Amino acid sequence: MSALDDPDYRTAVHDLLGLLAYGELSAFERLAADAAMAPDIPAKAALAGMAVAEFHHYQRLAGRLAQMGADPQTAMESFREPVDAFHRSTAPSTWLEGLVKAYVGDGIGQDFYTEVAAFLDPDTATLVTDVMADLGHSAFAVENVRAAIEDDPRVAGRLALWGRRLVGEALSQAQRVAAERDSFDTLFVGTVQRPGIGLGGVSAMFNRIIERHARRMASLGLAS
Amino acid sequence: MSALDDPDYRTAVHDLLGLLAYGELSAFERLAADAAMAPDIPAKAALAGMAVAEFHHYQRLAGRLAQMGADPQTAMESFREPVDAFHRSTAPSTWLEGLVKAYVGDGIGQDFYTEVAAFLDPDTATLVTDVMADLGHSAFAVENVRAAIEDDPRVAGRLALWGRRLVGEALSQAQRVAAERDSFDTLFVGTVQRPGIGLGGVSAMFNRIIERHARRMASLGLAS
Repeated sequence: MSALDDPDYRTAVHDLLGLLAYGELSAFERLAADAAMAPDIPAKAALAGMAVAEFHHYQRLAGRLAQMGADPQTAMESFREPVDAFHRSTAPSTWLEGLVKAYVGDGIGQDFYTEVAAFLDPDTATLVTDVMADLGHSAFAVENVRAAIEDDPRVAGRLALWGRRLVGEALSQAQRVAAERDSFDTLFVGTVQRPGIGLGGVSAMFNRIIERHARRMASLGLAS
Repeated sequence: MSALDDPDYRTAVHDLLGLLAYGELSAFERLAADAAMAPDIPAKAALAGMAVAEFHHYQRLAGRLAQMGADPQTAMESFREPVDAFHRSTAPSTWLEGLVKAYVGDGIGQDFYTEVAAFLDPDTATLVTDVMADLGHSAFAVENVRAAIEDDPRVAGRLALWGRRLVGEALSQAQRVAAERDSFDTLFVGTVQRPGIGLGGVSAMFNRIIERHARRMASLGLAS
């Protein structure tokens, strides 16, 4: 019996892929908006290229949902409001805020999905790992943010505050999603056939994610 | 002797491709911003897909410039300010304004480049015609704008005004570009080896473009 024959697991996968697909579509929009704030044409083209890569991920995820017999729009719909709320409350007002957000946000997303991939059937795990792979965004953000801080050390304080706000808003929307979608409980708590990590495991996972976030902030030259 | 051996012609081609490349990069940004205003997920994904298609056109144009030995950034740089000024002065404040702008703007761009393609060497003409091909954007805009007018006929008046403003701003930036770049004169006026259309021809061309614009506005259900 395949894991996907279990209807609870199947629902959880639809939800995960729906959240991820809508997240990628929003990442596309966010990076495209960052491209519009870029200081020069090469930076603009680089950001636009990253946005396009996110859109191709979105297409793969929507394609997989359709292939599983799920309606991609329905799968995404429940996550639209929390994801949009996160982006509304953290709209970058400068090019550097946009870069920090892309780097910090993608990093947290990657860490979360890498942890989750451990509970997934191999096909879903591969898809999730593929679309979460770093496409050079990190190096681009780190290089540009560090250069800006070197130019003007005062920006570091403001960007550090901004990083804290991003994490706060991300956690608050994540809690909202978790509270609304039982399927994620099913996945994390697990069943006899499909062991999860339990509530203690979930809390340890969040600690690991926060710790890795602190390391990313440090690599930008920012306090977390 | 190939047309591209003539240094004046070569400069004109670099300028045309640079303008077109920066135009596509800006079209990417504009459509991505429209995606952010879309009323539902399918419309958002459709607009994002159109933005991505524009980015792939940008990549082809930048690639051709590089292949011709020109620096794509330098070729684009002179057009950055007029193109950005056009977009700043015509930032859509609603989803429908965005659709009308995409449709009307792409249409005028297409008409202009189709006219220009007649003076170009075959390779450049093919590239320009390819990247200007309608990718279904028109049908999408026409369908959505007509449906919105059917729902609420009052939007037609506001959108008709908006269409007029778009053309006015486009012509004013086009004049600015034409005044600053001698290479376009060279192209339109022509030489013995490479006949152009002369000033009378240019004015007739602008009349044809305005006429086709009026037909497009009519197909949206709008007065021009």
